[in-house]
Amino acid sequence: MKILSLFEPIRAELELVEERLHQAVEVEDSQLREILLYILGSGGKRIRPALVVLASKFHDSDMEQVLPLAAAVELLHTATLVHDDLLDGSVLRRGNPTLNANLGTGVAILVGDYLFARAADLAAATDSVPVVSIFARALMTICSGELKQVFDQGRSRRTKEDYYQSTYSKTASLFAASTEAGALLSGASPPTVQALRDYGHNLGMGFQIVDDILDFTGDEKELGKPIGSDLRQGTITLPLLLFLETHPEVGVLPSIFEEEQGREERIQSLVDMVSDSSAIGSAREAAERFTVESKEAIQNLSPTEYRQVMLDLADYLLERRL
Amino acid sequence: MKILSLFEPIRAELELVEERLHQAVEVEDSQLREILLYILGSGGKRIRPALVVLASKFHDSDMEQVLPLAAAVELLHTATLVHDDLLDGSVLRRGNPTLNANLGTGVAILVGDYLFARAADLAAATDSVPVVSIFARALMTICSGELKQVFDQGRSRRTKEDYYQSTYSKTASLFAASTEAGALLSGASPPTVQALRDYGHNLGMGFQIVDDILDFTGDEKELGKPIGSDLRQGTITLPLLLFLETHPEVGVLPSIFEEEQGREERIQSLVDMVSDSSAIGSAREAAERFTVESKEAIQNLSPTEYRQVMLDLADYLLERRL
Repeated sequence: MKILSLFEPIRAELELVEERLHQAVEVEDSQLREILLYILGSGGKRIRPALVVLASKFHDSDMEQVLPLAAAVELLHTATLVHDDLLDGSVLRRGNPTLNANLGTGVAILVGDYLFARAADLAAATDSVPVVSIFARALMTICSGELKQVFDQGRSRRTKEDYYQSTYSKTASLFAASTEAGALLSGASPPTVQALRDYGHNLGMGFQIVDDILDFTGDEKELGKPIGSDLRQGTITLPLLLFLETHPEVGVLPSIFEEEQGREERIQSLVDMVSDSSAIGSAREAAERFTVESKEAIQNLSPTEYRQVMLDLADYLLERRL
Repeated sequence: MKILSLFEPIRAELELVEERLHQAVEVEDSQLREILLYILGSGGKRIRPALVVLASKFHDSDMEQVLPLAAAVELLHTATLVHDDLLDGSVLRRGNPTLNANLGTGVAILVGDYLFARAADLAAATDSVPVVSIFARALMTICSGELKQVFDQGRSRRTKEDYYQSTYSKTASLFAASTEAGALLSGASPPTVQALRDYGHNLGMGFQIVDDILDFTGDEKELGKPIGSDLRQGTITLPLLLFLETHPEVGVLPSIFEEEQGREERIQSLVDMVSDSSAIGSAREAAERFTVESKEAIQNLSPTEYRQVMLDLADYLLERRL
């Protein structure tokens, strides 16, 4: 297993999480097992399980509770990716064919549902009802956020407020749930739990903004998916919102998508305009602000090596190229 | 709220469950709320919540735990129906347009996911980790059973064993989970929990077989969906399996589905043949055997009015026309 080098201080724990993940997909049906292993093996960075483990290190944590939670969070995340790819009609994820592209809609729906259930069972293995509840609510937030996006599509122009709200639902809510639940399981004091939740929340916001920037400026090969994917799906993210603020003449966005002919060229040209504009720098500044806030949230926690990993992780996620 | 008259002894509890269900869908987003109310209001018989309540009556049950569980089970069931209709491409359920027919695939996936999450949160409100686990495992069984059906499609002819296995996964597992979890929450003794689980299991098997018979012999108006729906989706159920045993000459089933032209006529003619055959009587006998076993499972429990409702329910579900 390849882990990010900055996770070295929690290597042992992450290897145990990996074991739990593999145990969790050891199902009787060989076809289902193969599919689950394919999804698990397709190269996630395991950031969320790492957040659970790190957040549990500020008090007396019991690994027998922390490990199932870390595995549960990764499976929940994986389930949402499977359904997301289906919703978006994506055919590639991290350079590999998506489940829906490979095996169709029905299998993608059911495998996602199976993973939700497996994740819930692992969450129950923490033996903590509040943790199960945090977990269930994060999923509610994720789903209702995505539904709002579907309902709002084409209705009115997306605002920055809409964008930040959806970024919280989509990504930051699960980051925050991971650190909150990890801290709670360790029996940390309420202010420590809150500090760790705030860290996760801000880290997730910054992470998603960087993701959205990379969808304009990234390298297709490194990302394993085409540039401009969001725009192609009609999703307007921060770089474009900031670009439109300074270029009101590029106003009538829906027209980009409406006509089939020349659509791809119009999208490509918009991607190029945004990439070359100052909007990228402004979006980066927004991501930096969240990164700073995530680090500030944990400044009063004991200065352990784990806190250092969390500080380094915030910088790493800001600077990453994929 | 209209409840089955045989549920009269638990009317008060079922009305409180209904209140919980409505509270559970009181979400901020008005569009999502409207959708959830539409789904909840589309006429389920609330059999699973009734099973939870009834099974909790054999020991000291705390309604503050039982009610959220009963609501959770109904929401979980509803979530699986939403995804099922999408998988099957069904356009009608209980006479109303399905969510996928009305609002499309994306909304149906996300609303189903949202309901899973809401159900998990309600399950957590029981404050019982074992109950959450029973609940999560029932969902795993449902999903892996459906996946098996997808994987097996067109591979080899379905056997009766396959049918019974899938009937357990699809229906009996959640019936069994409902009675087991209800009993467990009440603090009933292990043999009582087991007896109630066995009741639920056998009741669910009989229920599903009757459902499958009605798909051949039922009244389209009463059912709110076309006759022969299973066959049209390529699902081979017990009446057809029994028919094929005595009519081996109608062997090459896949040919029915393969050619588009005249497909509907071939299906209709097969539905008529099965309906007029002795296979219906044989399938009914199978349903009766499960009904008898469900009643036998609880014969040693205290002869309360609740046990009587459970015995009556078994007979009612066998005799129902929809």
